[in-house]
Order: sequence, then structure tokens, then C-alpha cells
Amino acid sequence: MNVYLDHAATAPLRPEARDSWIRATESLGNASSIHSAGQGARRLLEDARERLAAVVGCDPIEVVLTSGGTESVNLAVKGLWWARPSGADAVVLPDGEHHATLDAVEWLAVHEAATVRPVALDGAGRIPVDSFAERLGGAALATALVANNEVGSLNDAPALARDAAAAGTPLHLDAVSAFGHVAVDFRAWRGDAAGSAGLVAMSVSAHKIGGPVGVGALVVSRHAALAPMLHGGGQQRGLRAGTQDVAGAVAFATAAELAVAELDAEARRLAVLRDRLIAGILSSVPRAELLGHPTLRLPGNVHMLFSGATGETLLFLLDQADVSVSTGSACQAGVPEPSHVVLALGRTDAEARQVLRFTLGRTSTDADVDRVLAVLPEAVERARAAASGARSGARS
Amino acid sequence: MNVYLDHAATAPLRPEARDSWIRATESLGNASSIHSAGQGARRLLEDARERLAAVVGCDPIEVVLTSGGTESVNLAVKGLWWARPSGADAVVLPDGEHHATLDAVEWLAVHEAATVRPVALDGAGRIPVDSFAERLGGAALATALVANNEVGSLNDAPALARDAAAAGTPLHLDAVSAFGHVAVDFRAWRGDAAGSAGLVAMSVSAHKIGGPVGVGALVVSRHAALAPMLHGGGQQRGLRAGTQDVAGAVAFATAAELAVAELDAEARRLAVLRDRLIAGILSSVPRAELLGHPTLRLPGNVHMLFSGATGETLLFLLDQADVSVSTGSACQAGVPEPSHVVLALGRTDAEARQVLRFTLGRTSTDADVDRVLAVLPEAVERARAAASGARSGARS
Repeated sequence: MNVYLDHAATAPLRPEARDSWIRATESLGNASSIHSAGQGARRLLEDARERLAAVVGCDPIEVVLTSGGTESVNLAVKGLWWARPSGADAVVLPDGEHHATLDAVEWLAVHEAATVRPVALDGAGRIPVDSFAERLGGAALATALVANNEVGSLNDAPALARDAAAAGTPLHLDAVSAFGHVAVDFRAWRGDAAGSAGLVAMSVSAHKIGGPVGVGALVVSRHAALAPMLHGGGQQRGLRAGTQDVAGAVAFATAAELAVAELDAEARRLAVLRDRLIAGILSSVPRAELLGHPTLRLPGNVHMLFSGATGETLLFLLDQADVSVSTGSACQAGVPEPSHVVLALGRTDAEARQVLRFTLGRTSTDADVDRVLAVLPEAVERARAAASGARSGARS
Repeated sequence: MNVYLDHAATAPLRPEARDSWIRATESLGNASSIHSAGQGARRLLEDARERLAAVVGCDPIEVVLTSGGTESVNLAVKGLWWARPSGADAVVLPDGEHHATLDAVEWLAVHEAATVRPVALDGAGRIPVDSFAERLGGAALATALVANNEVGSLNDAPALARDAAAAGTPLHLDAVSAFGHVAVDFRAWRGDAAGSAGLVAMSVSAHKIGGPVGVGALVVSRHAALAPMLHGGGQQRGLRAGTQDVAGAVAFATAAELAVAELDAEARRLAVLRDRLIAGILSSVPRAELLGHPTLRLPGNVHMLFSGATGETLLFLLDQADVSVSTGSACQAGVPEPSHVVLALGRTDAEARQVLRFTLGRTSTDADVDRVLAVLPEAVERARAAASGARSGARS
């Protein structure tokens, strides 16, 4: 029986979401068609949009459905850039953002001559509100994670949004790893920001909360100045062309409603499991260290540094024991890279390769924690021995 | 019982595709994860990619999965533009392309100073090979529909691809409305084109052939010079970031295999229904006229001009009789516009508002044709009377 502790990579599809997807596909018609079949699809779609709006805290017209978090983030970053106030050429970009954000901003820097105003994280992986605020003035846009997807640290989203509003700068929040796990409220965070300033866009994704892969949304304030990225039919306020995925939207809405309804109880339950896992690792594995903030962190996130052991090796050893975890770093084209997030905590390149991320979720149990605690100490010992042997071998 | 004759807008989900989607969602894991669960997802994904490659005629690595036709077309047009040879600034753009193409190229013209080299269609809605070829020299890219999605006319894709190869110009073919309905073969059409010249990209979509909405692909030659549009994790050769939709890919592959396996028999069956519908309309409705090419057309496409009747009114009258059809034009933000394709045939603005598109598909039967022929003549008569009354009223 596989112990799946990689819920942040993707969560199991909820049976209710699967069933609502199946039911929705039985209703034939393109939601942009005028005939009754099309209008039936349209009603399903708009009902899903309303349900999503209710749980993220926005008006239904502000929900722009996308193919997932990466598209949402790209649309937000590039769409705000293309619609920026004239003269503004800077993007406020905290270190440790998700690669979708980093790479989209890098493209803007190379291709559109955007200048980047980086914001260093604190040692616990949070965005310091003061230094974020200092960089906002006159920027084309700012972007920030609500919760860091690797180390799990929670940012002060309301404060970031308030400061962006005060500075008159459009803000995108990446809530992909936060939504459905901690309280997220677009309307409250936007507050009474004027026009296109302050919080104007927020990314969310379905498969991180038990919805299907390939579905997400960008919440776009009706006051936002945002250019589309996908051009074509004028679907979704002209902000996102393409035949709308009715079944995906319905399944996303079902998963989102369940996740938000269960949020308080599930966050409490997972925090107990999380803290037991953390305490168990710290007491059974020598020189293990928790990264990220000790309390202001996602309820299901455990991110550990095992100095002297390679994360990659640990991952394989745990996988052999049927425990699925992640190094938390992007492993692009098969080349393991040091985690840019761990580097952003002020850690060394070596340390950024010696981390493991355990992420608990809806299906996680006490038995899962027991299993990890039973196999991890020996795995770390073996990984440290292997790394030490490799170092000796390299010297000889 | 609804008579659904709008298969080109979206086709009913095939039960086999639905079942394979459900089965794939039972396998947990992100296809980019290194652990066994992730590798299981990866195997399902790569198997789907191989099956898709086999039916479109390319190598598996050349299948870049997307969220559908609109994204595929946008990625092709913009991605080829961003990777264009230095000095090239023109886009060869036939009239009557899909709005995804038209609007993406318009964005390049406005935002990136692309110049457009239009190609007029012939009176049957086909791209004249000679005038297309004349415009290719030194262009950044060319794009063309394999089959026109409104009037159904088939272009000479192999000739367009040959001429693009000879001119050294990268070509994108939009096969969204053609794939699964007529023979499509990326490898054969590309032929022995050198490097990034000739056919290098081809768009296809799942929901037009009985796969799920929200899934598509861009076939990208391994020799193509193409920049990504969605940035982030390095998935899919770095050409399309985002968590890969394994279940969507599997369902798409299932639908595509079935559509291609059935293609010859189904094309013959539909052509018989189509031609009976055309003949029946021409003999029962005065002054009806078939638009598009009489024989070189999609097997399920019937596109009729009913002069003196508004397409919009006809659509509503047929809908009341439980027959779902389309005007074939984009009805953006509820404002019915004249079809740009019909205008491209050299027709008047009035005529471009007097058309109906009937598209037959897998579930279409003789009884469907009978039903249309039973209700259409009176509907046209009423629509003509209404339009004539409106004109009299406007004069009075």
C-alpha cells in the first residue's frame, strides 16, 4: 500500500468531483452555442462559476477559467504587464516564487525589457512585508505567493494587498498551493482598493484540492486592467479564448466547495499529523532540521533538511519503501537542481539539495505518519553513508 | 429528442473516451514526480502520446499537449513568430481562418509590429495554392486551415506544405476541424522539408472528435524553431509548462484512435447523409444555395445560404423544433456578426448573415436528416416573412 505524501504535487481526485465531471459530460453542447443544447451547457458552466466565486470570494464574472495554475499565473503576470500604466517597467518579484511566475517574469525581462525588483525572503521563507512595500511604488505589477509551495510558509496576504493598494500598484497573488488549505478571500483582501491598484488577480488550481488536472482559474477583478494571453473567440470577457471546459469547471466547483467546507476541520486534523511527523523526525533522525516557518505554514506541509544526505537519494530509498515524497525542487529534463526556494532561505547550494518535502492531504492518516517514522531514520542513515562514500570516492 | 447537427461546435463524448478518462484518474500521481506513483502517471501519459503520434503521423516527442485548439493555434502562431528568422516580419494569413488564428495574428500586428500578407479565398472557400505560394518568400511564418470550420472546404494541405518548404518558410496547419474527419498525416505532408522550413506545426483538438473538452495538441516538428507561450516547469521539451493532464491525454488518445479507425467508413456514411441533406434542402427550399466546395468538403458539413432569411432567426426557429444548428459565425458578447468566412467567399454583408451550418457526426442518422427536411422549409418561409416584415416596418 503506497503511502502518498506528495499531495502538493497533485491530490487524489475526489469521487464527488469525478461524478460531477461524468454527469456534466452527459449534457451535450458548446457553452457558446445559441441553441438549447448550448444554453444547457452554458447554465452548467455559469452555475459552476457562481459556486467557485462564492468560495474564493468574488463575483462570478470575475472568475476566468483556465487550464490550470501555470496558465493562470502566466495570464496574470503577462496580462497585467501588457496592460500596465505607461512608463511603468518594473515587476516586484519575491525570491522563492513558483517557477511559473519566475519564468514568466524572466520572459518579460528578456523579451519586453521589464526590470525586476527582487524581494529577499526571510530565513523562514516568508516575504517581509516592509521590503515588499518599499519596492511597489511606480511598478507595473507585483506578484506574491499566498503560501510557498515548497517550504509551506504562509505570507501575510492581506498586508501585501493593502500595501499594493496604497502604492497604486496592481498585485497578483498566486494562491495555487493555499486555496482550499488555508482561508483565502479575494474580496476581503482586495478591500476598497481603487481601480486597477491593489489585489486585482489571484490564481487557483483544481488538482491541488481534489479536482481534475487541467482546470484552474484566474480571479480577475472587474476593475483590473488585464490583456488576454490566448486570443480567439471572445469567451470570458475577452480575457481567455477557447471552448469552455464545462465538465472541468463543474468538477472544480464541486472539489472547491468540499475543500472549503472541510477546511477548518481538515486543517486542524492535518496540523496534528504534521506536527507529529515533524516531532517524530526531529527526535529520531540526528541533525534533521525543519525549514520554513514553525507555525505559519500550510497545515499539510513538512519540509526537512537532512544535512549530509542527498534529497534525490532519500526520495528513491523512501520510494522503495513505498513512501512517495518530493525533493520539492523542479527536476527539469532529469537534471536535479538545488531548490531555488531553499537557496532563498539563505541556505547553501549543498543544503538546497538535501531537503525532502512531505505533504499530507485528505487521504493521509496516522498510519502514514507511523510508516514514515518507521523507515525514514534508516533511509537517512543510508543516504548519508552513500553521500559520504561518494565524497571519499571523489577524493581518492 | 434533440436533433444535434452542430458536431463542429462540439461532439458528444465517446463512452470509450469517458471510461479511459475515469480509469486514468484512478492512477494517482503527477507525471513529473520522480517516485513510483509519478512514474505510473508518466507511463500512462507517454503511452497516450505514442498513440496520438501514431494517428497524426509524427514522433511521440513531437506531440505537445495543450488545453485545446485555441491554445495550440496561439502557441503555433506566436511561438513561431517569437522564434522567427531575424529580419522576417511578415505573416502569411489566408482570409477565412478561425478566429483563434486571426486574433492571434492581429495581436502580433498590433503588439509586435508583424505585417500581414493576406491571401484571398476562392469563391468555394479554398485557399488558392498559387497565391499562397507567392506570398511565402521571406515570411516569418505562414498559417492555413486544413478544412474551413464554417463552410467545410478542404484545402490542398500537401501542396501548401510543399510550397512552404520550397520557400523556406515555417508553416502551421490548423487541423482542428479536419483531424479525425479527413485523412491527416503530419509526416507525409512535411515530407523532406529541411530544418525549420515547411510544415513544422499542426493543431488538433479532442472535443471535435469525441474526446473531452479542454484537451488538444500542437504537433511540433523536432526541427521547428518555436518559443513557448506558457512558462514554468520545463514540461514537454520546455515548449508548454504546466502539470500534464494525464487523464485528458488518455481520453484524447482513445477518441483519436477510434475516430481514425472509423474514418473511411464514417466519412462515406456521413457524405451520403450530407448529400441527401443538401439535395433535400435544394429541392424543398426555394433560393437555397450551398456555400463552400460541392465535393472537396468535410464529410459532415452542410453550409447553406437562405437569401432573405436571417440565420439567427432560422437558428431559433429550428431550435424550437428541437434541431440544433449554428450560424457558423462567432456570436461574441451576444452581438450577431456577419460571418467573416462568408464575406471571404466574396458574398455581401447581408448574405453573410443569412447562412446556416449543419454539421453531422458520429451520432447522426437518416432520421435526423428527415427531421430537418420536414421542418426547414416552413422555418425558412417564416424567417423570410419576418425579415421582409422587418424591412417593411423599417421603411414605414
